Amino acid sequence: MSLAPDRIEPPQRILMGPGPSDVPASVLQAMAAPTIGHLDPYFLRIMDDLSAILRELFATSNALTLAISGTGSSGMETCFVNLLEPGDDVLVGINGVFGTRMKDVAERCGAQVTAADQDWGRAFDVEQFRSAAGDRRFKLVCVVHAETSTGVHQDLSGFRELADELGAFLLVDTVTSLGGLPVRVDEWGIDAIYSGTQKCLSCPPGLAPVSFSDRAVQCLTSRQTKVQSWYLDLNMISQYWGEDRVYHHTAPINMNYALHEAVRLILEEGLENRFARHARNSKALVAGLETMGLSMQVPLPERLPTLNAVRIPEGLDDATVRKQLLSDYGLEIGGGLGPLKGKIWRIGLMGASSTQRNVALCLTALQSALKSQGFTVNDDPIAAMKSVYEE
Amino acid sequence: MSLAPDRIEPPQRILMGPGPSDVPASVLQAMAAPTIGHLDPYFLRIMDDLSAILRELFATSNALTLAISGTGSSGMETCFVNLLEPGDDVLVGINGVFGTRMKDVAERCGAQVTAADQDWGRAFDVEQFRSAAGDRRFKLVCVVHAETSTGVHQDLSGFRELADELGAFLLVDTVTSLGGLPVRVDEWGIDAIYSGTQKCLSCPPGLAPVSFSDRAVQCLTSRQTKVQSWYLDLNMISQYWGEDRVYHHTAPINMNYALHEAVRLILEEGLENRFARHARNSKALVAGLETMGLSMQVPLPERLPTLNAVRIPEGLDDATVRKQLLSDYGLEIGGGLGPLKGKIWRIGLMGASSTQRNVALCLTALQSALKSQGFTVNDDPIAAMKSVYEE
Repeated sequence: MSLAPDRIEPPQRILMGPGPSDVPASVLQAMAAPTIGHLDPYFLRIMDDLSAILRELFATSNALTLAISGTGSSGMETCFVNLLEPGDDVLVGINGVFGTRMKDVAERCGAQVTAADQDWGRAFDVEQFRSAAGDRRFKLVCVVHAETSTGVHQDLSGFRELADELGAFLLVDTVTSLGGLPVRVDEWGIDAIYSGTQKCLSCPPGLAPVSFSDRAVQCLTSRQTKVQSWYLDLNMISQYWGEDRVYHHTAPINMNYALHEAVRLILEEGLENRFARHARNSKALVAGLETMGLSMQVPLPERLPTLNAVRIPEGLDDATVRKQLLSDYGLEIGGGLGPLKGKIWRIGLMGASSTQRNVALCLTALQSALKSQGFTVNDDPIAAMKSVYEE
Repeated sequence: MSLAPDRIEPPQRILMGPGPSDVPASVLQAMAAPTIGHLDPYFLRIMDDLSAILRELFATSNALTLAISGTGSSGMETCFVNLLEPGDDVLVGINGVFGTRMKDVAERCGAQVTAADQDWGRAFDVEQFRSAAGDRRFKLVCVVHAETSTGVHQDLSGFRELADELGAFLLVDTVTSLGGLPVRVDEWGIDAIYSGTQKCLSCPPGLAPVSFSDRAVQCLTSRQTKVQSWYLDLNMISQYWGEDRVYHHTAPINMNYALHEAVRLILEEGLENRFARHARNSKALVAGLETMGLSMQVPLPERLPTLNAVRIPEGLDDATVRKQLLSDYGLEIGGGLGPLKGKIWRIGLMGASSTQRNVALCLTALQSALKSQGFTVNDDPIAAMKSVYEE
């Protein structure tokens, strides 16, 4: 290491991995505005704006809607530490890394966790949760809406009814869906929800939007024990974000600037337009990949538009191809995790990264890399891609 | 709320409160560099640089030295959740908000906390800790090096010996000292230490530098129970910062850029030069304040150069004066907390905010505000200030 390190000069990248996604220039600029105090009247207005816009994104009227001062995983932890007390029973659906992580986090809160299991790369039928529950009651039912590790889109139909049967709150992970596909907290009866900034919101990583139903707020204000995390204790954090403005911790001021600009851009584009763009670009990417002879890991009706998991052809070396894309094209795509390591690539089309130009670049770069590894590509993926945009 | 909020345009401020401090332009620019992936080879190099430079700042060779992905309080929580298991005994010195917070955080880990108490605004004699300990042994001895809530500088002489007598690890809060006055982890025998980025490092808030001695690392790798926080679990985080690069969470990329540039500037200035600058500017401020007839809350030998607590004269309204400084001069200073609320102002001279220009502005602004409130200022604070710089 040099004790006089260089100035920051990152290489030019196009981010089509599992996040972070490309960040628009105006978001980077907003983040570089001068830092001010965390109790400055201007910053308090930014916080109020953020709460209001996050309610739009989550499609909720929940009063307790704010950004936690940590990355997406701190949002997950916030939901569990605030709602759980030792000995509580939790039902978690596990079909990827993030369901697995939910179980781990819940157990660290002293909860008894029952898992509903599904193959990695497949969505759940709500009946699988029902049969895992048996005749027991639960404090929380936890499900991942968009499994970043596999590209699975979980339909949430029936989950509110299930949670009601079990006497449970419904907790949902929307890290890879918020801002990229519909997330409707009030309509779907979600009690606790979290996301991250660096996926479909196209803001740098560093904050975790969360929202809690009034029922969930009643639960956390009537706890018997203190929340085990001081840093993530919503009873205190909500007094800083609320009217009282009681100092809790020093908010990451500039990260909040960045999120404010990122969500401003989303409202400017319009949520429905944004969802349609994500769906269209994913469809075009998949058309190109399939034309090249590649196959998708997740069946069509369960597939996320934001995270496209494609099978690595037999005999190809995962790391070699990804390294080639990075060095030749500055293009980042993701590898698989857990049982899917070495078996899939994860191609993100999130937020500002979800563009026709990126789809074309990714197909071209992948075609070139596959050919150089001796893989035969017969048909023209770009033509297949174009036909989707011309529909 | 407007659904099409404005772009970010913060007012011009000079930050002389208890943090954040003013952020140099090159740090803001570094933060606005394009976001890249958290496993990108360039970002991994940035992390290695950061570990190495933080070791310089902490004056340590501790392998486990890194930046936690949250603000300073998450650094505090990281120390406690990793070192404590339920039932452990902890000795905490309480003479301000941050000792009080340490007690709260330790109790949330299931620890039995014994407090050594001291008046807010005074430093401890190590004997006060010894007598609070009695004949018991402890897992942790916890002390605040720089109490942001009162402006007290705690001399750490004798604390290593005390910790050895009690069989304890020594845990130190340096949120308001790191980068502003000497912090010598190895020489002082500190086992666990944390700081924040937004004080004397003059980086926006959002990261918490921490360092752990090898003995402390042995403690955390041989725990009987899992760390209660998944997000702050150093057994996992150290595998991401270490050679294995095991994915844990998505690091706040741009915040790490900013910290990298902030610590680069510190090495460029030189630590000793920086400490001398902080000491000189504080001395000049105090000379001016005392000339105006104001008195300092903390006796001279226990006074921090980075956070200057001055008594509010009888009959003056705290909030009115601070509001006037903010509206007339864009100048932020802090109010008191807890028993000192309404009784002191906290004037920060941290990092880039610690300049002769800011000292002069603060004295001028305060003089004007006090006069407008009917407070008599006889002598010239600027002349008193200048005489310090001419020494």
